[in-house]
Amino acid sequence: MFAKETYINRRYALKKTLGTGLLLFLGNDECGMNYEDNTYRFRQDSSFLYFFGLSYAGLAAVINIDEDEEIVFGDELTIDHIVWMGSQPTLKEKATSAGITETRPSTHLQTYIEQATAKGQAIHYLPPYRAEHLLKLERLSVLRQSTGPSIPLIRAIVRLRNYKTKEEITEIERACNVTADMHITAMKTLQPGMRECEVSAALEAVAQANLCSLSFPTITTTRGQTLHNHCHKNIVKPGDMLLIDAGAETEMGYAGDMSSTICAGSRFSTRQKEVYDIQLAAHRAAVAALKPGIPFEEVYDLACRTICEGLKGLGLMKGDPAEAVAAGAHAMFFPCGLGHMMGLDVHDMENLGEIWVGYDGHPKNTQFGRKSLRLARPLEPGFVLTIEPGIYFIPELIDYWKAEKRFVEFINYERLEDYRDFTGLRNEEDYLITETGTRRLGKKKPMTTDEIEALR
Amino acid sequence: MFAKETYINRRYALKKTLGTGLLLFLGNDECGMNYEDNTYRFRQDSSFLYFFGLSYAGLAAVINIDEDEEIVFGDELTIDHIVWMGSQPTLKEKATSAGITETRPSTHLQTYIEQATAKGQAIHYLPPYRAEHLLKLERLSVLRQSTGPSIPLIRAIVRLRNYKTKEEITEIERACNVTADMHITAMKTLQPGMRECEVSAALEAVAQANLCSLSFPTITTTRGQTLHNHCHKNIVKPGDMLLIDAGAETEMGYAGDMSSTICAGSRFSTRQKEVYDIQLAAHRAAVAALKPGIPFEEVYDLACRTICEGLKGLGLMKGDPAEAVAAGAHAMFFPCGLGHMMGLDVHDMENLGEIWVGYDGHPKNTQFGRKSLRLARPLEPGFVLTIEPGIYFIPELIDYWKAEKRFVEFINYERLEDYRDFTGLRNEEDYLITETGTRRLGKKKPMTTDEIEALR
Repeated sequence: MFAKETYINRRYALKKTLGTGLLLFLGNDECGMNYEDNTYRFRQDSSFLYFFGLSYAGLAAVINIDEDEEIVFGDELTIDHIVWMGSQPTLKEKATSAGITETRPSTHLQTYIEQATAKGQAIHYLPPYRAEHLLKLERLSVLRQSTGPSIPLIRAIVRLRNYKTKEEITEIERACNVTADMHITAMKTLQPGMRECEVSAALEAVAQANLCSLSFPTITTTRGQTLHNHCHKNIVKPGDMLLIDAGAETEMGYAGDMSSTICAGSRFSTRQKEVYDIQLAAHRAAVAALKPGIPFEEVYDLACRTICEGLKGLGLMKGDPAEAVAAGAHAMFFPCGLGHMMGLDVHDMENLGEIWVGYDGHPKNTQFGRKSLRLARPLEPGFVLTIEPGIYFIPELIDYWKAEKRFVEFINYERLEDYRDFTGLRNEEDYLITETGTRRLGKKKPMTTDEIEALR
Repeated sequence: MFAKETYINRRYALKKTLGTGLLLFLGNDECGMNYEDNTYRFRQDSSFLYFFGLSYAGLAAVINIDEDEEIVFGDELTIDHIVWMGSQPTLKEKATSAGITETRPSTHLQTYIEQATAKGQAIHYLPPYRAEHLLKLERLSVLRQSTGPSIPLIRAIVRLRNYKTKEEITEIERACNVTADMHITAMKTLQPGMRECEVSAALEAVAQANLCSLSFPTITTTRGQTLHNHCHKNIVKPGDMLLIDAGAETEMGYAGDMSSTICAGSRFSTRQKEVYDIQLAAHRAAVAALKPGIPFEEVYDLACRTICEGLKGLGLMKGDPAEAVAAGAHAMFFPCGLGHMMGLDVHDMENLGEIWVGYDGHPKNTQFGRKSLRLARPLEPGFVLTIEPGIYFIPELIDYWKAEKRFVEFINYERLEDYRDFTGLRNEEDYLITETGTRRLGKKKPMTTDEIEALR
C-alpha cells in the first residue's frame, strides 16, 4: 500500500466534500468457488482500497464525519488461523498503516450503525455488487432505513478517484508495462495448430511471474466477433486471426488493459489487412484527438466516422459516414464503446454507476451501440482511459438487422455476406490525459500489421 | 458433460433413496470481483453438476418426487447477451442434454416453491456456502419454513457421490495426469533466485494449456510450515525447499490434487533429506495400508506413528510413538489430516459437511490435529482420496506449546530449537480404493529425494 498519508489525505478530502454523515464502507469477503474454504483469489473492494488500502477479507470501516471518528471493524486471527494461513499483522497494525487508530470487533458494527441511526445520522453506503454486500446491508438494517446507495457519496468518490495522482500513475504504468509484455509474449508464442488456451496460458504466466494478477478474465479467441468471448478451446488455424484482450493488475490493485489482434500465420491476408488498417486509423484518430476539454463522445464519433469511411471504401457501407454514425448504422460493425476510465478497476468505478463516472450525471443515449459507451464526458488532466476501437462481423446481428431491413441506406447487406466469416478485430492501449494532450501508459506494443508480422 | 443417461440415472437413484419431498438445487451465479461484470471464473455448484451437468450461471432445478416433476429454472439470452457473450444453447436444449424436458423462467421458482409449501411438501435443500445462496433461500422464503439444510438429502447425495463410477474415474485420472505434469514442470522450472510466483506461473500454465482450470488456489512456498500459504512473493534461495500443492480441474469439474517438496538447488541437504525420508515413509506406510474396510483414521494413526518414530530417531521426540500419537503430541509436527475424499470437489462434498462425508455421521474427535481429519470412516471400493502426510516446524506453535509445557514427555523442545527454521514439507498423491486394495490415479511424479534431484 501507499504511505498512510495518502489514505489520510483521501479521507480528509472526502469528509471535506460531504461535510456531514456516516460513511459506511464494506470490504469484500472471501468467496467460495464450490465450497466455503475453496476460495477465489481475494479481491478487495476498490473504494475500500482507495480510502483504507487494506487488502484483507472480512473488514468494514466507517468514517463518521459528525463524530469525527474513523474506525476499522474486523477480527483478530486465532492460533488455528495462524497454523493454516500464517501470521498476519494485528487488526490494530493494519489500521495504523492506513492512519487509523480505532479498531473494533466485527460484531460491534451493527450496534454502531444502530446507535448512529437512532441519533438521526444519515448512513451513506455504496451500491452493493456482491450478494454478500446485500446480505450485510440487510442484516445491518441499513437497507430498510435508507433510500438506497448514497448519490452524494458516489459523486464525492468519483470526483476523487477520477484524477490519478503521480503515485497512482506510477502504479498504473507498472501494470501497463506488464500488460504490454503479456501481449508481446502472446505474439511470440502463437503457432497455428495451438489451442487458444495455450496462448492465454503463456500470457497469464507473464502477469503471475511479475507478481501481478489479472485485471479481468482474459480473452484469447479466433472468434473475435464475440466481444467478451471467454471460451479458449478452439484450435487456431492458419489464416485465422487471434484477438487478445488481457491485462495485469498490480498487487495494490491498479489495472492495465490492452487488446491485440494477431495473424495465426506469419502474415495477415489482404482482406484482414484492409479491415485492420481501418480499425488502426480509427485508433490513431482517437488518440490524436485526446486532450483536456474534449467530450469523449466526440472522440467516439470521430472513431466511428473513420470506421464508416473505411468500410465505405470496402463497399460494405454507403452514404454519408457522419449521417450513418448519427443514425447508428456503424453499430453493425462497432456495437460497443471506444474506451473507459481505468484505475483501481479496469472499468474504473463501474460499480458506482456509469452515469456518474462516464457521464458526470448527464443522461445516457439509448441507441444500440452508443448506449454501450462507458465514457462520454469531457476529459480532464489526470484521467486515465483506454482506447479500443474494433470492427466486428457478428452473424447473429447481420441476420437480425437484415431481416428488419435496418439501415439499408447505409449498409450494403449483399457485400456484407462475403464478410460473414471475417470474425472481428480490435486493438487497445491505455492513455493518461495530461495538461496539454495525452501520454501513452506503458511500453509500446506492436500496433501495425507490419510490426505484428515482424514478431510472428 | 456425460451422456444424459448418467444424470437421469443419478436422479433416479436419489429419488429412490428419498422416496418423497421436493428437492431444491440452487446453481451458482457469477460473482463480481470488484464490480458486477468483472467476474471470477464461473464454477457451478458440484451437486448441481452431479445431477444436472449444466455449467451455466443463473440456473436452479427442482426434483419434485411427489409430483414426479423435474424442472430446470433459468432465462434465455437476449440479442445484447449474444453480441457480448456469443451464442449459447437455449434453456430447453441445455435441460434436454441432462434428460429434462421441462423448463421455466427463473421468476417462476418462487411461485413453485410457495405452492409446494402450501401443499405441505417438505423442501429439501443443501447447506448454503455462498452469500448468494443465503439471499436466494431467504427470498424464496425457504429459510423461514424449514429447519435448515436437509440431512436426508445430504446423506442420500453422499451415498451416491462417494462411489466414483468408471466414467468419473477416467475424468479424475485425466485431472491427475495434468496435475502430475504441473508438478513435473515446476520441478524442471525452479532455479534459485526465482520468485515463488514464477514457479506457480509455470505450473498453472500447464493446467490452462490442457483446457483445465485449478481445482484450488496453488501453494508454492518456501515457508511450507504454513499449511495454506498463498503468498508467492518470496525469492527462493539456494538451500531452501519449495513446497508445492496444486491441482488441475477438468472442464467437467473433476479434480486432481498433489503436493511435492523440492530442493531449490540441485541437492537436498542431509537434514532436509532426513526429515523428507520420514515423511516419505509415512506416505508409503499409509498407501500400503489402503484397502476396503480399513477405517481411514487407522491409516492416519499409522502415518502419525511412522512420523513419531522417525522424529524420535532425530532426537526431536521421545517416549513411545503410539502413546505420543494417542496423546496428540504428533500434532506439533503434523497438525492436519492425512487426506480427503476427492471428486467434483478437491475436498469432495466439503460443503455437505465433513461429518457426513468423512465420518458417516459419527462424531469427530476434538483433539488438536486429529480434529482436522476430513476423513476417518472405513474405506470402500470406488472411493477416491488423497494421501498427504507432512512434517512441519511452526514457530508460533512451538512457542505456544513450549510456554504451556505441553507434551514435554514426548517432545524434546531443546532439540526442536535447532529446527525452528526448517519450514515444512509434504507430498501427496491421489488413490482409488479398488475391490482388493488401491490404485494410484494419474502418472507417477517423482517422490523420493533421488528422483527429485534427478530432475533438478
